[in-house]
Amino acid sequence: MIYFHNDYSEGCHEKVLEALAGTNLEQTPGYGTDDYCAKAADMIRTLCGRRDLAVHFLVGGTQANMTVIDAALRPHQSPLGAFSAHINVHETGAVEATGHKVLSVPSDDGKITAAQVRQAVEEHWASESFEHTSQPKMVYISNPTELGTLYSHSELGALSAVCREKGLYLFMDGARLGYGLAARGNDVTLPDIARLCDVFYIGGTKVGALFGEAVVISNPAIAEDFRYMIKQHGGMLAKGRLLGVQFGALFADGLYFEIAAHAVRMADRIRKTFDELGVAYLVPGVTNQIFPILSDAFLAELSKTFMFTEQERVDETHRAVRFCTSWATKQENVEALCAELKRIAAL
Amino acid sequence: MIYFHNDYSEGCHEKVLEALAGTNLEQTPGYGTDDYCAKAADMIRTLCGRRDLAVHFLVGGTQANMTVIDAALRPHQSPLGAFSAHINVHETGAVEATGHKVLSVPSDDGKITAAQVRQAVEEHWASESFEHTSQPKMVYISNPTELGTLYSHSELGALSAVCREKGLYLFMDGARLGYGLAARGNDVTLPDIARLCDVFYIGGTKVGALFGEAVVISNPAIAEDFRYMIKQHGGMLAKGRLLGVQFGALFADGLYFEIAAHAVRMADRIRKTFDELGVAYLVPGVTNQIFPILSDAFLAELSKTFMFTEQERVDETHRAVRFCTSWATKQENVEALCAELKRIAAL
Amino acid sequence: MIYFHNDYSEGCHEKVLEALAGTNLEQTPGYGTDDYCAKAADMIRTLCGRRDLAVHFLVGGTQANMTVIDAALRPHQSPLGAFSAHINVHETGAVEATGHKVLSVPSDDGKITAAQVRQAVEEHWASESFEHTSQPKMVYISNPTELGTLYSHSELGALSAVCREKGLYLFMDGARLGYGLAARGNDVTLPDIARLCDVFYIGGTKVGALFGEAVVISNPAIAEDFRYMIKQHGGMLAKGRLLGVQFGALFADGLYFEIAAHAVRMADRIRKTFDELGVAYLVPGVTNQIFPILSDAFLAELSKTFMFTEQERVDETHRAVRFCTSWATKQENVEALCAELKRIAAL
Amino acid sequence: MIYFHNDYSEGCHEKVLEALAGTNLEQTPGYGTDDYCAKAADMIRTLCGRRDLAVHFLVGGTQANMTVIDAALRPHQSPLGAFSAHINVHETGAVEATGHKVLSVPSDDGKITAAQVRQAVEEHWASESFEHTSQPKMVYISNPTELGTLYSHSELGALSAVCREKGLYLFMDGARLGYGLAARGNDVTLPDIARLCDVFYIGGTKVGALFGEAVVISNPAIAEDFRYMIKQHGGMLAKGRLLGVQFGALFADGLYFEIAAHAVRMADRIRKTFDELGVAYLVPGVTNQIFPILSDAFLAELSKTFMFTEQERVDETHRAVRFCTSWATKQENVEALCAELKRIAAL
Repeated sequence: MIYFHNDYSEGCHEKVLEALAGTNLEQTPGYGTDDYCAKAADMIRTLCGRRDLAVHFLVGGTQANMTVIDAALRPHQSPLGAFSAHINVHETGAVEATGHKVLSVPSDDGKITAAQVRQAVEEHWASESFEHTSQPKMVYISNPTELGTLYSHSELGALSAVCREKGLYLFMDGARLGYGLAARGNDVTLPDIARLCDVFYIGGTKVGALFGEAVVISNPAIAEDFRYMIKQHGGMLAKGRLLGVQFGALFADGLYFEIAAHAVRMADRIRKTFDELGVAYLVPGVTNQIFPILSDAFLAELSKTFMFTEQERVDETHRAVRFCTSWATKQENVEALCAELKRIAAL
Repeated sequence: MIYFHNDYSEGCHEKVLEALAGTNLEQTPGYGTDDYCAKAADMIRTLCGRRDLAVHFLVGGTQANMTVIDAALRPHQSPLGAFSAHINVHETGAVEATGHKVLSVPSDDGKITAAQVRQAVEEHWASESFEHTSQPKMVYISNPTELGTLYSHSELGALSAVCREKGLYLFMDGARLGYGLAARGNDVTLPDIARLCDVFYIGGTKVGALFGEAVVISNPAIAEDFRYMIKQHGGMLAKGRLLGVQFGALFADGLYFEIAAHAVRMADRIRKTFDELGVAYLVPGVTNQIFPILSDAFLAELSKTFMFTEQERVDETHRAVRFCTSWATKQENVEALCAELKRIAAL
Repeated sequence: MIYFHNDYSEGCHEKVLEALAGTNLEQTPGYGTDDYCAKAADMIRTLCGRRDLAVHFLVGGTQANMTVIDAALRPHQSPLGAFSAHINVHETGAVEATGHKVLSVPSDDGKITAAQVRQAVEEHWASESFEHTSQPKMVYISNPTELGTLYSHSELGALSAVCREKGLYLFMDGARLGYGLAARGNDVTLPDIARLCDVFYIGGTKVGALFGEAVVISNPAIAEDFRYMIKQHGGMLAKGRLLGVQFGALFADGLYFEIAAHAVRMADRIRKTFDELGVAYLVPGVTNQIFPILSDAFLAELSKTFMFTEQERVDETHRAVRFCTSWATKQENVEALCAELKRIAAL
Repeated sequence: MIYFHNDYSEGCHEKVLEALAGTNLEQTPGYGTDDYCAKAADMIRTLCGRRDLAVHFLVGGTQANMTVIDAALRPHQSPLGAFSAHINVHETGAVEATGHKVLSVPSDDGKITAAQVRQAVEEHWASESFEHTSQPKMVYISNPTELGTLYSHSELGALSAVCREKGLYLFMDGARLGYGLAARGNDVTLPDIARLCDVFYIGGTKVGALFGEAVVISNPAIAEDFRYMIKQHGGMLAKGRLLGVQFGALFADGLYFEIAAHAVRMADRIRKTFDELGVAYLVPGVTNQIFPILSDAFLAELSKTFMFTEQERVDETHRAVRFCTSWATKQENVEALCAELKRIAAL
């Protein structure tokens, strides 16, 4: 079987592994107070073009989401996102377990618009009984989204503007941020994100690390006492330097951006084949995720050799499924997939 | 500087690193549903002499504690432990953040006795207004304790008996379990623990792994739906196989027990020197932690070369401090420490 | 101004007040352990035709909802209701504050169907990654619903059947239950409800009491330790007998049912006028709530004399609003409203 | 049986009942937005000598405690109180259920001192790993305490000063505040409390009301969005005017202070008898609670006619018990008690 069903099937990039091995028996202080973390945090500040950013390294995405949201919001306040937001549909209520209701708006492409935010916030405050409903206080976006779509600079700017006007935080879940930054047509940079968001994270788990998300906080209100929040939410890694070492390796010589670009090239190659076969998509994409709509028969045949993920049933005989590439995707496997797609299409 | 201040200053045992490197580019399913986790779980079942145990791998100790406790207890129920219990004093209220009050009893040696449990439970139910207080429903013990002491077979049996009589769960935090099993005079085995406890974990973070705790559940009431609880508490590692690979390496050919025994030998060597120098201890110990009481002047001199942890002030001029050995402790560093201890003592 | 904007504008029925006054200086034990509560609980058991019901008296609806749900569910489990469910949209995330995500399905009439429950539960368990989503474990219904609609005996039976088949609890929020039982066409009785639901409550706040909801639990799993849950959620009234005294007065000689029937007659009178004027409804209703769709101009005129509640905008020039009657509604005010409706319609 | 076992055995003062009856059928807006609440809040501002206080009326003490604490603190922050603090030992973990660990210090008389606060806060921040422990951010005091003792003006001033110096909130649980204000030797006034505390409440449940606590907030950081917090914690009474009406009656013409003084006079009368009999106290007291130490035989005889509360066993043959007077205590019952005490003592 060849896996295209997610972007975390392998371990880590060889340079990350080398860095871990090379530092393995060094003695360092625990809990992320070591020099490797300090250095990696500094590299991120440099990439974002700002020295005043708080940077913390967490092990995984759900942990990052729940810690950031619980650090930022008072109990009656809610994050607002697209219905398909990861925190809303795929984290076993981890955010609610910290006491916060997740508010959502409908979205076909996984994105929430500035107009939707404006409307939700204005409706809240216009209500006669606003105190009887959760107060929207943060906008949660994934970029790329769970559907592989991307926020443009102007969309992100508009979200940021409405958040600041209305007193909301803007939080970007960047579990796949590398793949977004590397996508064709992307016009958003790390300095843009650091400027427009109050807090975001740069995903390592899906982009070359064994595990790890780098949380970057520009708003001091969220940064205050953040390490307590990490500890309380079970996210304080004893050997915290493992995260610093990994991100240090990923950000050395642009490795992170290079391997993300590889994944997008591999996805583009697959998209090209789907396009040639005239396959429709659930959502058009430019990053490392592809959501083609295929017949049940086609998928039955394909699943003999390839792993992919079920997304949703589209009609009686067709389903949308998901293919992911990653930093680890081998060209030969992509070619094998494309060949098999063509073979089945020709049956 | 030479570090003796904790047992997580280095990375992992070389065989663990080799196992990670050797499997690095394999493709496996995510979230701990891979064969490496299955195999490591089976090795643990074998070591415990039982096939009916649920085994789950978590990244760290606080995460394991909060997930187990929240999985086992209803909202009005509490774990009961020694005042010095890690969950009570060193986890930033992580258990309380899941809604459960932690109940505690005084203890000089870090242990809670069966008699204390019986008294606390009987006092609860004898109260006219028991519903106005949290219900003790679990006994939490660390073994070894935070003070390096160890439960004997008879102490553990008595705790287990009173828990079963009174309808409480018995939960053993085994973050340093390896060092306990390897200690002189220890008469408790893994099969004993699996039989006497409802749930426990075998610590990897402090005993040779990069990170990881193997949670072992014998009580089906706690095991039910446990993976939801892991996910909700942010503990579901995307590349879960990293935990299976590590524990697989640790339990192959008895490595875990061998490296734990090394740490204890190193600690014994240091204890011997303290004994020769007539140094008193805060608590006598047999595992990898040592709590000598030394003068401020002595410690000032010693801290020029060695890292150790502050424990507590004992009198105007003396403090108890903590020295830890681990799987990674080098004989030469131990010799250097012993020599320096003797040198300072002779000043 | 004459109030039709809710069913809690006045204090309590005079007989309830008399009962409070008549017992005011008696000395009783606190926290609901008195004879008045015991007697009122027994009256409810008799009305439900069962002796094995646990009955607890709480002060208000949000408190009852959060306490019941938190008592019944483990942390990863969720109540499932119509999107418009009170717990989902009008309780400031009180259920989420206890850690449980509220799951919802769309509904035009405020009701959730057995087919929707079946689909949601089957989809959950069919998912490859069900552990990454909250587990539906309870169906929450309001009867009457927030839109004034009512579950028929066959609808309630079907919900109960699917819940039992799938292992979910069925919980009925009966804040306005009296008005439902008294509605034309209602074919559900208290014994039916006690048999088909695992837990429900009989609302007093909106039906003649100063405050109070009688929680009735038929499922022992939910009943266990329920008083701890009340205390922990801040719902243990020191002078608990106030609730027993009130419900005792309401259930003596059928007062509760009589005053509920009055409210429905008053609402029917108003509905008759709307019908005569050809006014459409957001949802057709049979209980004490009416949701007519009226023009902005009409409402502007009407609001000079009458209070009602905004529900939602229907089009550019029309809004749905809510009129409520209650046990306290005076015939003369209803006549005044009807006359004014006709007057404005004739303008 | 004659009840002296608590101060909430009866309903409410007759003037409170009259006020409720006199306004019973008035129509008012719900949820405490009515004129009665506004007026009662104003009376409280006047009594406190400040116009800038936020005043909210809640139903009970546990509800008030959990709502205030959760409104004031971030998740990693804790209230700090005496071990015997009501929130620590008698609320079924209600504060922990909102996610906050309760920190405590030992106390013989139910009071926490400024020196204890200073030490706890300084120790927290001096720790190498302060982020691994809950951050003390609020001092919780009961005044009178659970043991009937009282803070003097100078003690309260010292607590306030250390709180302000260290950045902690000072919160006074005033469930029995009336009895404290009326006690012999009390030198603290409502304006003092409003000035020295960040938030406190004036108890109604135990001092003449059917139920109700008036939360008074002088610190705007706690006041912000407080009504959301009330709703989320299940404390938003639909007929909120019931609280305004009751407090309005209690604060008209000094009724609250007058009836509190009555209770203290009754307690003083009982204390005089105990003194004459040479009975020792667990803690000397000046308010409406008395904690004599009596022999088991004495108590067995006394309990044939009088209800009191068990406090704690003092030695093999003696227990400390609690007697409470209240606004409702009848002189004749006090005389009967004193006579019986003398009779038994003479046996």
